[in-house]
Amino acid sequence: MGFQAQWLETVRRKQSLLCVGIDAAEPGQRNEKALPSDLSKVEWTLGIIDQVAPYAAAIKLNRNYYKDISRSEMQRINARIHAHDMLSIDDSKLADIGETNDAGIYHAKAEGFDAITYAPFPGNTLQACAQADKHAIGLIVLVLMSNPEYRLMKEARIGEQPLYLHLAKQVAEGKAAGIVIGAPSDSNHITAHEIEEVAQLLPESLVLVPGIGAQGGELGPILAQFGDRTIANVGRAIIYHQDPAGEAKAYRDRIQALRIS
Amino acid sequence: MGFQAQWLETVRRKQSLLCVGIDAAEPGQRNEKALPSDLSKVEWTLGIIDQVAPYAAAIKLNRNYYKDISRSEMQRINARIHAHDMLSIDDSKLADIGETNDAGIYHAKAEGFDAITYAPFPGNTLQACAQADKHAIGLIVLVLMSNPEYRLMKEARIGEQPLYLHLAKQVAEGKAAGIVIGAPSDSNHITAHEIEEVAQLLPESLVLVPGIGAQGGELGPILAQFGDRTIANVGRAIIYHQDPAGEAKAYRDRIQALRIS
Repeated sequence: MGFQAQWLETVRRKQSLLCVGIDAAEPGQRNEKALPSDLSKVEWTLGIIDQVAPYAAAIKLNRNYYKDISRSEMQRINARIHAHDMLSIDDSKLADIGETNDAGIYHAKAEGFDAITYAPFPGNTLQACAQADKHAIGLIVLVLMSNPEYRLMKEARIGEQPLYLHLAKQVAEGKAAGIVIGAPSDSNHITAHEIEEVAQLLPESLVLVPGIGAQGGELGPILAQFGDRTIANVGRAIIYHQDPAGEAKAYRDRIQALRIS
Repeated sequence: MGFQAQWLETVRRKQSLLCVGIDAAEPGQRNEKALPSDLSKVEWTLGIIDQVAPYAAAIKLNRNYYKDISRSEMQRINARIHAHDMLSIDDSKLADIGETNDAGIYHAKAEGFDAITYAPFPGNTLQACAQADKHAIGLIVLVLMSNPEYRLMKEARIGEQPLYLHLAKQVAEGKAAGIVIGAPSDSNHITAHEIEEVAQLLPESLVLVPGIGAQGGELGPILAQFGDRTIANVGRAIIYHQDPAGEAKAYRDRIQALRIS
């Protein structure tokens, strides 16, 4: 079963579209929102997973915070995620070419991940899709990022069309498992029209949506287009809250209300 | 001393522009060019470093082949690189935004790297430059990749100019330590004109050049523009040769002949 089908099955069983994104900042790495000094990164991560598990369908590990983790440690984290009937996403934003991308995907699979994120900078999205298929892992391609600096990139012209439509067409052709669209808000540049354009090109694609937690983006316009194919990611607003379980439940319920409305 | 000055000093001391790129494929990861089954990845990597050290000024670790390596193991590898008076480049092709890029750079610094590669997909190159400065590590930004699929990307228009010039201008403004330009060859799309355009925008930038080993690209047109600011990367042609030291010496000598001609 591919990642798209795994996701839809998991959503059905858990009645949740929530994905919890974990960025395990070390004590001293930044001034706030870091893990406590009396727990190892792995133990802290396992604790968060246990707390949010009843309310989440997936966990996304923000890989740049886990560069120090060995394969056996990552396998232990992913085994815990799967034991709770959740899926596991390696948010590596892989951005290389050829066999190096294959290596990044190979490692993610060996570690037990179900999907990996991909930044299509060097242009070889079709090759990466084939590599992900070979390793039986879902590829999730960045298409519409919501950071202010991405505005120029998304509007860059490839021939007659903007880059984001070029990328969406490559995702359709390569049959990638999913894409990333940042949640639109009054303070960013993502528009309902862009979301609709991309959704129409990708009738089966999943969409991973960052930006609905602390950043205040709206899930509604994406949910309207993608329905249960929406992977609604919330990170720090849950994991660094004093009550991660309670916050995960609150987000799950809020998203569920939008989902069935 | 910043990474640019460190590089020029190392080149002067070692009389070499050679950087050896290491992609440690596990046995079973691919059909050929993989490490032997009787050595750990770390031991094999240390062995390669020892063999090429007399002839190289830098080592580039292809990070997607090292996702399983712990911080202490990476520190051991980087200590060995530095003990041989070489510089160490984390070829992660970091491609995220905000604090996640900061995390990737934080880890690279904690592991003992001198520089890290950056894929400017999400557009926030200036922010990444500032983050690299904060952590006292060199940022090397992808600008002109030589893979066939990059042709469309480099020619994408940002307003009136192609993406590669937009990126080169951001590198100049952010004062990144270096850029990546794939070595031009008859079979790829990199032109001498493009190299010259980029070089004129970046009179102090280093340039990391893949593609001159097995891929057969030419170093000459880049060396003509960047001189000793050229980091000439050779990977598999050296590390998977039966005599890595002999091949490293041969490449060093060939590059040296071009350098002083």
